[in-house]
Amino acid sequence: MKIHEIGGEFALINRLAGTAPAEHPDLVAGIGDDAAVIDSFYPGQESLLVTTDMLVDNRHFRQDWATPFQIGKKAVACNASDIAAMGGSPTFMFVSIALTENMETAWVEELYRGMSDVCRQHGIVLAGGDTTCGDVITISITLMGRATKQNLSLRSDALPNDILCVTGPLGASAAGFHLLNKGLTPPDPIKLKHLTPGCRLDVSPFIAPLAGAMIDISDGLAAEAHHICDQSGVGVEIYADRIPIDPLVKAAAATMGCKPMDFALSGGEDFELLFSISAENLQKLKAKKVDAFIVGKVMEASAGRTLILPEKKRVTLSGGYDHFR
Amino acid sequence: MKIHEIGGEFALINRLAGTAPAEHPDLVAGIGDDAAVIDSFYPGQESLLVTTDMLVDNRHFRQDWATPFQIGKKAVACNASDIAAMGGSPTFMFVSIALTENMETAWVEELYRGMSDVCRQHGIVLAGGDTTCGDVITISITLMGRATKQNLSLRSDALPNDILCVTGPLGASAAGFHLLNKGLTPPDPIKLKHLTPGCRLDVSPFIAPLAGAMIDISDGLAAEAHHICDQSGVGVEIYADRIPIDPLVKAAAATMGCKPMDFALSGGEDFELLFSISAENLQKLKAKKVDAFIVGKVMEASAGRTLILPEKKRVTLSGGYDHFR
Repeated sequence: MKIHEIGGEFALINRLAGTAPAEHPDLVAGIGDDAAVIDSFYPGQESLLVTTDMLVDNRHFRQDWATPFQIGKKAVACNASDIAAMGGSPTFMFVSIALTENMETAWVEELYRGMSDVCRQHGIVLAGGDTTCGDVITISITLMGRATKQNLSLRSDALPNDILCVTGPLGASAAGFHLLNKGLTPPDPIKLKHLTPGCRLDVSPFIAPLAGAMIDISDGLAAEAHHICDQSGVGVEIYADRIPIDPLVKAAAATMGCKPMDFALSGGEDFELLFSISAENLQKLKAKKVDAFIVGKVMEASAGRTLILPEKKRVTLSGGYDHFR
Repeated sequence: MKIHEIGGEFALINRLAGTAPAEHPDLVAGIGDDAAVIDSFYPGQESLLVTTDMLVDNRHFRQDWATPFQIGKKAVACNASDIAAMGGSPTFMFVSIALTENMETAWVEELYRGMSDVCRQHGIVLAGGDTTCGDVITISITLMGRATKQNLSLRSDALPNDILCVTGPLGASAAGFHLLNKGLTPPDPIKLKHLTPGCRLDVSPFIAPLAGAMIDISDGLAAEAHHICDQSGVGVEIYADRIPIDPLVKAAAATMGCKPMDFALSGGEDFELLFSISAENLQKLKAKKVDAFIVGKVMEASAGRTLILPEKKRVTLSGGYDHFR
């Protein structure tokens, strides 16, 4: 059924609101008023976090690759990943969406079912949004969260001599993208890592109180390391041979005749966390059985930003993905 | 200059952040981290407000009608209007934007200059966002605000026998739109009301403590009255001959051979406020020299929703603008 057949915009909003988790004791007014009203803030000890991400059809997702359920899951996960990277817990979500005039209601409902799936997993409440009409499906999500002062992990909190770690293997999402883009069929784990990535809210609460800077890897390890350097006023050494890369990613790279390390350094959307941590705190983290893969070291700014290749050759760390290049 | 010529996405963000009001004592981390960090919440006595609106090129704005400066102004004003309608003050803003690949940096800078202009006027701080690439320029704004419990005005707060008022003349924006759409030249006041509408944050702090329900008129008086009825569980009578309409709007309607009342009832984007208020509180409001034009009365739900035409004929109140009809 088309959206106009079910009664238009407001009928659609009512349907969608009914399928999503949209109630919470702190939510005085959610979907259906001019603005959401949220009470019960966190005096003194906690900060409010707000992140926002825009996903455009055929750029950030492809309808011939992903189901609307998968697109919805990814849309929420990439925002939840930003909250994880701050050391916080997600709370309230706002979804603005441009839908095309003649699209099927079922598609939109599946999208929201996917979003709701991730919301339920992480206790996220859909608190509002805007539904409008456009020529290109565009999803803009704003996600709020909360973090204690102790857990809050800014990009500017890295110190020279800290160790740089990642929470898991990198490059799978980029490998999946490039295989799909060449019309090849990725193995399921790689395909799913690209189409429905998770976020590391499972480990971020353990890492956050011990880490310095933290960032999620959405534009490749190199770009994220540069962000930490920019904001902390530090340099960095990345050890290429210590970047964890799944054997399936290596196999995919071989199939396509490219280097797996490039997927890890410059490919995006792994949504693992990159963090700086002291040697002492890294021991504490390991005692908690949290996976942490050492990939480099924070340096003084004067040392620059270096990638140390497997053959020990030192090269300047290049950038990552940029939407306008 | 094109965006890739100035150095891509991050260079653009730095430029834009430099031109906007982006600092505030409560803003621990703004543009440049995974999420904004906001402190100093309002324990007990105040609520956090969050509203979001998406504007799509050629649907919500037209580049052949409006300058990017004007588009930026309108984008912020329509969100600020939602905060006004809740009885709140705007605080922090997040802008997600899809830009086309080859667009001029100057256009984007003018857009942000327009946004910043309205931000400065109302003390709004740009705290974050997302910049990405798309085939259609799409602007998604999330605006936060704060409201005291006393001022908070929900759509659900209307009571039978309350008077319904609006804060100013209606229909000018719709008249402007229809003139432009026919290739005619609207008189300046009407043209500007469509291209750069204001919002009623100037009067909402006086109205909010005295009003019942309040809503901003973005989809026409009829649609907003329906929203109040739906959420307050009440009926309504609207007096057609008391709806304030500017003489220029009447002249524009005459030019196009249509009824000025239709612009007021079903045309959108006036961004005046519609509110319910007791007779006693309306006297108090008038004592404060706040303009309030009586346009109707809140009824019991069983009385239905009625438009009383100038000739006293009673008709069912129809709907307003719907993006999917």
